[in-house]
Amino acid sequence: MKRVRLTIAYDGTNYCGWQIQPNGITIQEVLENCLEDLTGKKTPIMGASRTDTGVHALGNVAVFDTDMRMPGEKFSFALNQRLPEDIRIQKSEEVPLDFHPRYRESEKTYEYKILNRQFPIPTQRLYTHFTYVPLDIEKMREAGKYLVGEHDFKSFCGAGAQVKTTVRKIQEICISREDSLITIKIRGKGFLYNMVRIIAGSLMEIGQGMYPPEHMKEILEAKDRQAAGPTAPARGLTLVGIQYLEEKPIEAEGEKVTWA
Amino acid sequence: MKRVRLTIAYDGTNYCGWQIQPNGITIQEVLENCLEDLTGKKTPIMGASRTDTGVHALGNVAVFDTDMRMPGEKFSFALNQRLPEDIRIQKSEEVPLDFHPRYRESEKTYEYKILNRQFPIPTQRLYTHFTYVPLDIEKMREAGKYLVGEHDFKSFCGAGAQVKTTVRKIQEICISREDSLITIKIRGKGFLYNMVRIIAGSLMEIGQGMYPPEHMKEILEAKDRQAAGPTAPARGLTLVGIQYLEEKPIEAEGEKVTWA
Repeated sequence: MKRVRLTIAYDGTNYCGWQIQPNGITIQEVLENCLEDLTGKKTPIMGASRTDTGVHALGNVAVFDTDMRMPGEKFSFALNQRLPEDIRIQKSEEVPLDFHPRYRESEKTYEYKILNRQFPIPTQRLYTHFTYVPLDIEKMREAGKYLVGEHDFKSFCGAGAQVKTTVRKIQEICISREDSLITIKIRGKGFLYNMVRIIAGSLMEIGQGMYPPEHMKEILEAKDRQAAGPTAPARGLTLVGIQYLEEKPIEAEGEKVTWA
Repeated sequence: MKRVRLTIAYDGTNYCGWQIQPNGITIQEVLENCLEDLTGKKTPIMGASRTDTGVHALGNVAVFDTDMRMPGEKFSFALNQRLPEDIRIQKSEEVPLDFHPRYRESEKTYEYKILNRQFPIPTQRLYTHFTYVPLDIEKMREAGKYLVGEHDFKSFCGAGAQVKTTVRKIQEICISREDSLITIKIRGKGFLYNMVRIIAGSLMEIGQGMYPPEHMKEILEAKDRQAAGPTAPARGLTLVGIQYLEEKPIEAEGEKVTWA
């Protein structure tokens, strides 16, 4: 028996998020079906991040256990042959049997993309949130500074979440603009339900001039979801990657992969 | 009666190209239907570039004539309210009645995008051509130099084209790489049927090392479609824009548009 870790990219447009549920098709379900087809056995997958309906990923992480003799790094090729075009394994590798994608300490990086111009660009519509209201990214950057560090992010926690504590730590918020595309990059050790999208919604209100940058401090202090801005739409959000901390590199078996 | 010029962006994924045809829905058809809905009359549209099935545009150009009293620059808003999400007017403006989008001298800019890495990225699949065979862009740049200038591009002309001459002039070919995304940008005064995609297919063969860069000169000299590489897939191609030469700026009537 061995444990295999997958790094997975997907276009979330046509999925009801990561986690298996009765209302529609999910990433986890499609992956488990392909894995059953490959291994000949029901093989449950445990994901690191249960992304919401419509949210995209460049590097979500999941593990499964198998007694197949195929080397860990070969699963990427075998699964990609079976997966639909909007899900692609980026990497597969054997990890220790006690590696747990959710309880192991990690940093996640998200990007929220906003297309800010007079009219939408059709080829970007699926992966950005569009707004024609001009956004002042200097104000957004100033507001973002209040969120960096360890805080009680209760105001940024979506309804229905059951968590012991709403204290989280944001390592970095970086806001950049390239032509009409604004990217909010957020890196942190853990996120509450809808936290990145509520932060994005709050930053946009400040960028529009509805509130001054200092309003972000008031939102934090209120510890009340009503104080924050709206949850920004899912299509703008991408889980860029998950970095597991204090991890020893795992030696690849067999054929060397020549790609970085 | 006035003539209105539209600058149009679209995601070509779900269309059988620009021009109306019996086999499937086209950009022109959808635009004409929206225009009929708006004006109450059948209003034919004449496009500058009849892009193929699956090809995208950021700035294709088309004109129509109307006796509606709406100012030219307002048609963008009125049409965008009626259009599906994958077609968006970027600009509308009144032009002289003798302005013809196809016969007026112009330069077109195309981009062909190639995703060159081990595995595809799902969120880029619709707008790039994927290949895992490593491409050497220095060799592609060297090969591209043979194409710049006025040449007989007969070897780069798709079958079925009816043209008086296959001599065309390429102003510029610029090949760049950003991470795993290679962009071939081509600017010229006119293009033959499938010319950009056949150039992209030929450049990729040279980038893979199948032929040396000088092979591009031999392809040109052969004046034979068989000498060139394959037609690269449509999804990688975007018509970026059309610049009409010696054009006097047209004063916008009514409300000033504040966006650049």
